[in-house]
Formats: sequence, C-alpha cells, structure tokens
Amino acid sequence: MYIKKEFQEIISEAFHSANFNFKPSSLYDPIKYMMDLGGKRIRPLLTLMSCEMFGGCIDEALAPAMGLELFHNFTLLHDDIMDQAPIRRGKETVFKKWNTNSAILSGDTLFVMAYELVTKTTPALLPQVLELFNDTARKVCEGQQYDMDYELRTDVSIPDYILMIKLKTAVLISCSLKLGAIIAKAPAEEADLIYEFGENLGLAFQLQDDYLDVFGEVDKFGKEIGNDIVTNKKTFLYLKAYELADRDSLELLNRHYRGKSLSASEKVKTITAIYRKLQIDVLTRSLIDEYFGKALAIIAKINIPDEKKQMLLEVAGQMVDRES
Amino acid sequence: MYIKKEFQEIISEAFHSANFNFKPSSLYDPIKYMMDLGGKRIRPLLTLMSCEMFGGCIDEALAPAMGLELFHNFTLLHDDIMDQAPIRRGKETVFKKWNTNSAILSGDTLFVMAYELVTKTTPALLPQVLELFNDTARKVCEGQQYDMDYELRTDVSIPDYILMIKLKTAVLISCSLKLGAIIAKAPAEEADLIYEFGENLGLAFQLQDDYLDVFGEVDKFGKEIGNDIVTNKKTFLYLKAYELADRDSLELLNRHYRGKSLSASEKVKTITAIYRKLQIDVLTRSLIDEYFGKALAIIAKINIPDEKKQMLLEVAGQMVDRES
Repeated sequence: MYIKKEFQEIISEAFHSANFNFKPSSLYDPIKYMMDLGGKRIRPLLTLMSCEMFGGCIDEALAPAMGLELFHNFTLLHDDIMDQAPIRRGKETVFKKWNTNSAILSGDTLFVMAYELVTKTTPALLPQVLELFNDTARKVCEGQQYDMDYELRTDVSIPDYILMIKLKTAVLISCSLKLGAIIAKAPAEEADLIYEFGENLGLAFQLQDDYLDVFGEVDKFGKEIGNDIVTNKKTFLYLKAYELADRDSLELLNRHYRGKSLSASEKVKTITAIYRKLQIDVLTRSLIDEYFGKALAIIAKINIPDEKKQMLLEVAGQMVDRES
Repeated sequence: MYIKKEFQEIISEAFHSANFNFKPSSLYDPIKYMMDLGGKRIRPLLTLMSCEMFGGCIDEALAPAMGLELFHNFTLLHDDIMDQAPIRRGKETVFKKWNTNSAILSGDTLFVMAYELVTKTTPALLPQVLELFNDTARKVCEGQQYDMDYELRTDVSIPDYILMIKLKTAVLISCSLKLGAIIAKAPAEEADLIYEFGENLGLAFQLQDDYLDVFGEVDKFGKEIGNDIVTNKKTFLYLKAYELADRDSLELLNRHYRGKSLSASEKVKTITAIYRKLQIDVLTRSLIDEYFGKALAIIAKINIPDEKKQMLLEVAGQMVDRES
C-alpha cells in the first residue's frame, strides 16, 4: 500500500514529465506556464487514493487523475479572465502575462487536453467516466455563472450560496473520488457513496477557504487576507452576518461592504470586527464541522476495512483543517 | 434512401426540439440564442450523408452529428470575442449582446454539451469517436491560434496559410465525414479515405469563402463584400497577389493594405482592382479546383457504388461552387 507522500511524488513526477511542447508555442506556452505554477494537486491525489481504497490499480488511474487537474486549471484560467485577477499562486495570471485572447484559447485547448487524459481508460469504463466528467464540467460552469450572477444580485440566500459552491467546487472533489472508484471497478452504490462523501467534504473545504480568507494568517494562507471582503463577495460569512446583525452592525455592514469610504485594510478590519462580534468565526467552523461530520457518516457506510480508509480520511481532515 | 432535403429536415427538426432551457438561464440563454441564429448546418449534414453512404443507420448518427454543430458554434462564440466581431448571421454576437464573460462561460458550457452529444454512441465505438473528436478539437484551437498569430506576422507564406485553414476549417469537415463512417462501422481504410476527402474539400470550401469575400455578390453572399481586405487578413488572395505583384502593384498593396489613407470602400475597390489585374480570381478558382479534384480522386478510391456517393458529391460540389 502506498503512503500519501508516495502518491504526491507519483503525481508530481507525472506532471514533471508531461509534454506541453506542441505547436504553435503561442498556444501551448500559456498552458505550460499555468501547469508549472503548481498547486496542491488535491484532485488527482483524491482519485489515486480512492482508486487504491477500492482495490484498484493506481497506474490505471493516473492519466484520468491528471486530466482532472488539467480541467481544474482550465477553469482557473478562464475564471481569472472573468474575475480580472492579476495574480495566481504568487505569479501573474495568463491573461495578464499574455492577453485575454490567449487565455481564452489556451484555456479551450487545456480543456480538450483534460478530456484526452480523463478518457484514457479501458473502453468498458468509458461510458461511465464520460457521464461523470461531462456532468461535472457542466456543473462547474453553472457554479461559476451563479458566482458571477450573485455579484449583481442583492437577494442571495445562504442556500443559494451553498448551491453555488456545491456546483463550482464540491462536485469536482466528488468527481475526483468517484473517478477513482469507477477505475477500481467499485460497486455502483459505493461509487455513489464516495461521490456523496466528496460533496460534503467539498462544501466543508470551500467554507474552510472562505474562513481562512478572513481569519487565516497571511504567512500560512499564502494569499492576502480579506480579499473576499475587499471584493464584496457574498460568502457564507457575509450572508450569516447579514442575517444575524443587530441594527448597528447592519448599518456598518451596509455602509462599508459595498461602500468606498474606507481603505481596503480599514474595510477588512471593520468587517472582520463585525464578524467576530457576531461570532461568525465560530458559526463557520461549526458549519464546516457539520458538513465534515456528514461526510464521515457517509464514508462509514462503505463496506471496506477502516485501515484502508485511513489515508483518505487523513487527507480529508487536512482539507478542512488546513491553514493554507 | 434519403434525399438531401430530408436530411436537412431531420437536422432542422432535431435542433428545433433540442432543449437548451437549463438553469441558470444567464448561462443557457446565450447558448440558445447562438443555436437559434441558424446557419447552414453543413457539418451534421455531412455526418448523416457519410453514415448513410457507408450503409449505417442515420438514427445512430444524429446525436453525434448535432454535437459537431454545437462544437462549431462554440468555436464561433469564442472566435467572435477574439475577433471583436459585432455581427454574426445578421444579428449581434453573444459577447456584444451580453458581455465577454458570458460569451466565455456559455462557450465553455456549449463545448461540454458538444462532448455530451458527440459521445452519444455505442460503447464499442466510443474510443474511436473520442480520438477523432479530441484530435479535431485540438487542431481547431491550433488553427485559430495561427490565425491570430498571422495578424502580427509579416512573413506568412502560402503554405503557412494552407496549414492554418486546414486546422481551423478543414479538419472539422473531415471529422464530420469520418464520424459518419465510424458510426456506420466502415472499414478503417475507408474511414481514413473519407477523412482525406474531407480535408481537401474543406480547403476548397475555405478558399471559396475567401474568394466570395472579394468577388462575391453582396445579395447572394449575405455578408459585406471585402471584409477580409478591410481587416487586412492575410488570405491566399492577398499572399498570392503579394507574390506576383509588379513594382507598381506592390507599392499600392503595401501602401493600402495596412494603411489608413483610404476609406473602407475605396480600399476594397483598389485592392480588388489589383487582384483582378494579377488574375487572382482565376488563380484562386484554379486552386479551389485543384483541391476539389484531389477530393474527387480520393473518394473514387472508396469501394462503394457511384450512386451511393451521388448526394455527398452533389453537396460537396455546392460547397465549393456556392454563391453564399
């Protein structure tokens, strides 16, 4: 049995030796640049771990697992255009370093390459793999659209927000896990359970990201703290604060969340103080625990010895309890 | 045996009853709008005709054929952003009517929907279908990148141009035909021959488009005449003129093709006059005939009675001899 570090090395080595040198270089250089930015490679790790947990051969899961990472990077490439984000993983984003047209077209190409890798599996499994991946890709696009729509809407509810992060983030976590199960030829009900586990884990994972964006430590988080506040994102933290706010806090929230009277750092400070006063940190952690608890209850139903679930549970725990 | 009109009705009916009403409507409305703009639907027609020619059942080819039309429309959606084109088929383009972000994300979603339909085939055929479609999609992206690159390059040769239109346009014609052959379970060599036929037909088809852009009649062409000249496109016509120009013509070409001294209509008039003087119209038609002749020689090698090839040959003839 592999240990987590070995899986990470296998994945890292696979990306290291992956070939992105095709012609024209104007199309493939941005792809190579994007993939070289790195990242945690959590999605392929989940696929490999799930595959092994269900008794599959991880050699057969490696190409599809990489395909999911390519897909994830394709979505980031296009999201960065839509969000006009200048920095990704400490470096210039593709649309900034090249231009919007390059980012659109290199993204499209990366999407095709994702399909190429995801479908590198035995013909017997192809229909299932395709159904899963097509469905996931559609949902991720829908999630991104909701995210953009919410920026303009003033009536976003907490269930709306949960739906959005489920589509935009959680389904790809689910897909990563179920893909491993399919390749390991797990029974359909168990593949569905690991998908459901992934959905709850994915929600907890995104909420943790939202939490760290406000309450994280900049050295460990690796990004600016308070970016969601500066960009007026309607996260769970904001929506819950809005729901619980007394008259004074509501007035402050309304004045500063969209207003421009404060500098970015003052705004982050003011809003964070409101969040603390309303115990939004505690409430967010409690919702994270709720989803993570649901995930644990679901994986418990999978009929596999506990020791085989160990590594996945450890990584899942880190995903919702990480500091970066 | 079906006749062309019946195929067109089947395709038209299929798109008429296709469902694009998913949520969020902000994501799917632009897709519905794009697909409702219509177009000639040549690619699905080629798939159905090829499938029937090889003795296949066209019911099995309909969904994949529609998928190729969706893919084609996805590329147009993104190309229109990159070209900043305001009008498509007489109506506002998606990025103009909505915005760039909508056009990017609705395009991405349309691409997923294309994959969903293209892969709606029996599991036994999936590996072949995917290999063909992935390869085609990659090449179409590469072609679009070359097209953008050529706008900035001053050393584009005629072979460069032919490579670009092969990737950007011809391979999707080839793919449409080969997809029909695969679904009809044609022998691999014959599927390859129809692909090769399609490549040559596709080149002739694009050159015909370039020809009509300059020498067509506006009423029949349905678009402005001379758009390639106004936007300084380095088409075969321009490159050949540049190659053949005497000193006076070269001076005029250099002065006006990139220059801004003339109004759009004067520029079209001046450049068209140079083209006529250098017999570019005749040379272009002759190159079209050359590629079409190659296509005919290739299809002749396919071991199927001539009468079964009749309809495809008729449509192919219209594609390179059309006025619109």
